[in-house]
Amino acid sequence: MTRPVVAMLMFPNFTHLDLIGPHCVWGQDMDIELVWQDLAPVTTDSGMQILPTATFATCPQQVDIVFVPGGFGTTDAIANPAALGFLADRGRTARYVTSVCTGSLLLGAAGLLQGYRAAVHWAFREFLKPLGAECSTDRVVIDRNRITGGGVTAGIDFGLTVLAEVLGQERAEAIQLMMEYDPAPPFDSGSPEKASPAVVGAIESLLAEGKPDLHRAIEEAHTLLSSGKA
Amino acid sequence: MTRPVVAMLMFPNFTHLDLIGPHCVWGQDMDIELVWQDLAPVTTDSGMQILPTATFATCPQQVDIVFVPGGFGTTDAIANPAALGFLADRGRTARYVTSVCTGSLLLGAAGLLQGYRAAVHWAFREFLKPLGAECSTDRVVIDRNRITGGGVTAGIDFGLTVLAEVLGQERAEAIQLMMEYDPAPPFDSGSPEKASPAVVGAIESLLAEGKPDLHRAIEEAHTLLSSGKA
Repeated sequence: MTRPVVAMLMFPNFTHLDLIGPHCVWGQDMDIELVWQDLAPVTTDSGMQILPTATFATCPQQVDIVFVPGGFGTTDAIANPAALGFLADRGRTARYVTSVCTGSLLLGAAGLLQGYRAAVHWAFREFLKPLGAECSTDRVVIDRNRITGGGVTAGIDFGLTVLAEVLGQERAEAIQLMMEYDPAPPFDSGSPEKASPAVVGAIESLLAEGKPDLHRAIEEAHTLLSSGKA
Repeated sequence: MTRPVVAMLMFPNFTHLDLIGPHCVWGQDMDIELVWQDLAPVTTDSGMQILPTATFATCPQQVDIVFVPGGFGTTDAIANPAALGFLADRGRTARYVTSVCTGSLLLGAAGLLQGYRAAVHWAFREFLKPLGAECSTDRVVIDRNRITGGGVTAGIDFGLTVLAEVLGQERAEAIQLMMEYDPAPPFDSGSPEKASPAVVGAIESLLAEGKPDLHRAIEEAHTLLSSGKA
């Protein structure tokens, strides 16, 4: 069997764990390209620098999985027509079109979630509807060939779900054991329903700062998409 | 309050998720150096290339946290006297000496776990005793200022535990919410007690291949340490 080919988009200020969860799950079995517009190091939103392996031009045309992470740089990536064009192009023929965290907003801005159910980071659920998608609060959502995960750490659950789809449940169970994924969070604050109101409020305030710009970027992408230029 | 300073060791063929779990948890609040012997990109055991930010020479002398990941490159890193020397040096004065996965074998080889309880990836538990450490099967182990985590994904639970120690539980709960860490593994195979015998056997066979070399590297590091040259 040939190894599945994956195109993982990177962009400045993406959240590395969004991508590295599934990258670690898939890395033994799939050929993964890390794709950006050039091959210079991409800096994540925590300052780590990671090297792309392909550009929009050199990434294989036909891929099995297109994947998009999220993070604080989502807004700027949505405002980048070349990034949206790349997603729209590879997404058209990919076997699976996927994302974690606010990566689903990028898929939506590229026109790939019209009429699909999708997941997104809990604090950004209001942004899916304007993109033509139906927001689900599930941690991992499969709707036909769209598979999307919630915020950041959901990428591990998402990655195992996709691996089971592509290579079967026994392989996914083996990788889960290899990664010792038997989680035991020290606190129970991982969702807005479970965290204390003070903690929810602190994170909502922090993330609210970037929302007006994100709204604007999504509107502009929508206009671009409607004009057929993306 | 000044931001805690962290030195995270990288080395060829380390497992990126071991490091990026805690890096993502700590990244908002701590100043993190990614350290290797030079500044060329370090290739992880899944082929990703990450740039160091400091060398053994330029990393701050006094750090709050020393951290070591594990991975398939652990054996070669144990055979690297400069890496062990760096750990022994910074570990002597660090407030916390920490690891995830087989990173604890590196701490042990640097002489930093003599008489301490520690965690390690489940498939490598036999290696802690020859290093003078007592192996614990807990996912995260705190013994005085040594804090160690189990395999790969244990790094997220480990990272939150350390963050709560350093900055308090409320901050750790907020970061947990930001990372939407409310895990829902699609399968229940994350530990050797839970996975099927076939799955456990497959991973044990795969990992057994590297064990003779690892045993040898640990013996040689022990000799080096006893001679006082590390």
